Amino acid sequence: MRSPLPVSRTSAVPAGAEEPISLRDMGSFHVGGRLVEIEGKPIKEVTFTAGGVPARVDPNGTYQVEQMYVQYFLPVNERGACPFLLWHGGGMTGVTYETTPDGREGWLNYFLRKGWSVYNSDAVERGRAGWAQYPDVFKGEPLFLTTADPFARFRIGDGPASHDPDPAKRRLMPGSQFPNEGYETFVKQLAPRWTTTDDAIVAAYIAEIDRVGPSIILFHSQAGPFAFKVAQTRPDKVKALIAVEPAGVGDPAKVDVLRTIPTLIIYGDYIERDPRWPKIRATGIAFAEAMKAAGGSVDVIDLPRVGIHGNSHLTMMDKNNLEVAGLIQTWLEGKGLSRKR
Amino acid sequence: MRSPLPVSRTSAVPAGAEEPISLRDMGSFHVGGRLVEIEGKPIKEVTFTAGGVPARVDPNGTYQVEQMYVQYFLPVNERGACPFLLWHGGGMTGVTYETTPDGREGWLNYFLRKGWSVYNSDAVERGRAGWAQYPDVFKGEPLFLTTADPFARFRIGDGPASHDPDPAKRRLMPGSQFPNEGYETFVKQLAPRWTTTDDAIVAAYIAEIDRVGPSIILFHSQAGPFAFKVAQTRPDKVKALIAVEPAGVGDPAKVDVLRTIPTLIIYGDYIERDPRWPKIRATGIAFAEAMKAAGGSVDVIDLPRVGIHGNSHLTMMDKNNLEVAGLIQTWLEGKGLSRKR
Repeated sequence: MRSPLPVSRTSAVPAGAEEPISLRDMGSFHVGGRLVEIEGKPIKEVTFTAGGVPARVDPNGTYQVEQMYVQYFLPVNERGACPFLLWHGGGMTGVTYETTPDGREGWLNYFLRKGWSVYNSDAVERGRAGWAQYPDVFKGEPLFLTTADPFARFRIGDGPASHDPDPAKRRLMPGSQFPNEGYETFVKQLAPRWTTTDDAIVAAYIAEIDRVGPSIILFHSQAGPFAFKVAQTRPDKVKALIAVEPAGVGDPAKVDVLRTIPTLIIYGDYIERDPRWPKIRATGIAFAEAMKAAGGSVDVIDLPRVGIHGNSHLTMMDKNNLEVAGLIQTWLEGKGLSRKR
Repeated sequence: MRSPLPVSRTSAVPAGAEEPISLRDMGSFHVGGRLVEIEGKPIKEVTFTAGGVPARVDPNGTYQVEQMYVQYFLPVNERGACPFLLWHGGGMTGVTYETTPDGREGWLNYFLRKGWSVYNSDAVERGRAGWAQYPDVFKGEPLFLTTADPFARFRIGDGPASHDPDPAKRRLMPGSQFPNEGYETFVKQLAPRWTTTDDAIVAAYIAEIDRVGPSIILFHSQAGPFAFKVAQTRPDKVKALIAVEPAGVGDPAKVDVLRTIPTLIIYGDYIERDPRWPKIRATGIAFAEAMKAAGGSVDVIDLPRVGIHGNSHLTMMDKNNLEVAGLIQTWLEGKGLSRKR
């Protein structure tokens, strides 16, 4: 796919059949974060641009850190009951929900076309949120992933040795829905991440929902604990939680706070074949059961059990991504949160 | 501004008067970059998510580095002769062209509304492009800016001591058009940057234009040398160059290659009051003169000389940003590159 135009034509929905996306507004903002003081560094002379003029830069002073980035798309024909927030997983950014690595429409466009005001974000230290110097501000080192690492860990490949630079030689899970031909592009979407910034990420997400107001949150993987914790902090501002393969949960001692928030938890395929996912899923199921015991409304969908097979950890990028999105949209309509067309 | 809805209402164009933005498609892709091998690092056990399950991570292997991110918006009523690429400056990302720091419409929306297919990007090592580990891949340290640094250097403030945390105490240039009340938000848009990645950035921009095809490039500050070099490498694929306060230029020995490319160079206000900008501008003017001497078509506009006063280095964020955008649009129409409505 050399240009985005052919790309759009390869969408799961034939381009000819697609209505235009009509927006009353689109834009972005940064929110949250804090100011920190850094002292004791030597003054530098920096030539910012080759052939430019050197500037004296004093690295001592006040820095803005731990803010996050939010991009919003507001449809003309709004049918959602409230804003729809998309939160990405670890080592990833809001690109997660945009065009799939093989060039099909992602969940951002899907939910926008369904009439939701969609807010797609980059969490603290990821993408357009920017990141802070370490060890001065962030503790520990950033983590980078090899091109091979996510292939098995995200349940695309069949076993730790399943990745190969040659797409034809990669051993995908039997019946995998991941677009193997897009794996190189998926790897380009990966961003360095820390494992020490959870509190800052949660604080910025709270700032986001305080600004946007009562919203639905759809979140993936690492954002599992973030979204449940934000909901436990601002239960009045969360109208529904949609957890896509959450890697963690909220505070088990506060499940009663989530009682009023309709919650959907989705797991993909091959869980049992993975060394880590049976336990990760069990943690999610236990949290869901505790929410229910506290009077909450939680639906757990294991995609293979409803006849949807082959999904990796990257459900929103899999070839059947719009089928899974449709299942989420139907659930939201069932909760009275979206008007049918 | 608590929510983007009021924000959009504060647009320079009254929201009521705005037509919807109607898109035949929107999406994103990553392009460019290379694979590198990293060896000799210890294997780590990483718990990616608090309460999650530890994973064994081998940091040795192949890494994808130096790719860039491109987000595109394709209008239903296309009136531009070709795609319109927006390239940001140093320490910044594509956010530069989105909503202004005080919540008005930026140049992305403006040119989209004028019927251009707009491609807004994050250069290598910035924003959603991701960044590579150093010193293994990138040489040197990343550069972070204090909240005070850009205030005078971007010609918002009047002198090096003009910045103050209290907006009311900041000494702006007399008649400044920069939205002082948005400065805190502008600072949140800043991203760490290196000064050693120019070649990788140019290579990725060439990959972008090779994928998108013949395009107009509008570029700011640090992207000056990048855009002129890309045009000198792919003159057949650059239909116009719009340089907004370029911090550098191309190869003076190859100005003849740019002969066929209509070029507009724009400078803001307060150049003479700045310690660095008179020389930076002189470099740009000399390059423009050399292009003309080689038979090129170059228009240089010093905004104050055409009655547009008060512009900082961040023209696209200043309160009169749409007036300057209109000047650019008129220039493009004059070159026969955009059909009038």
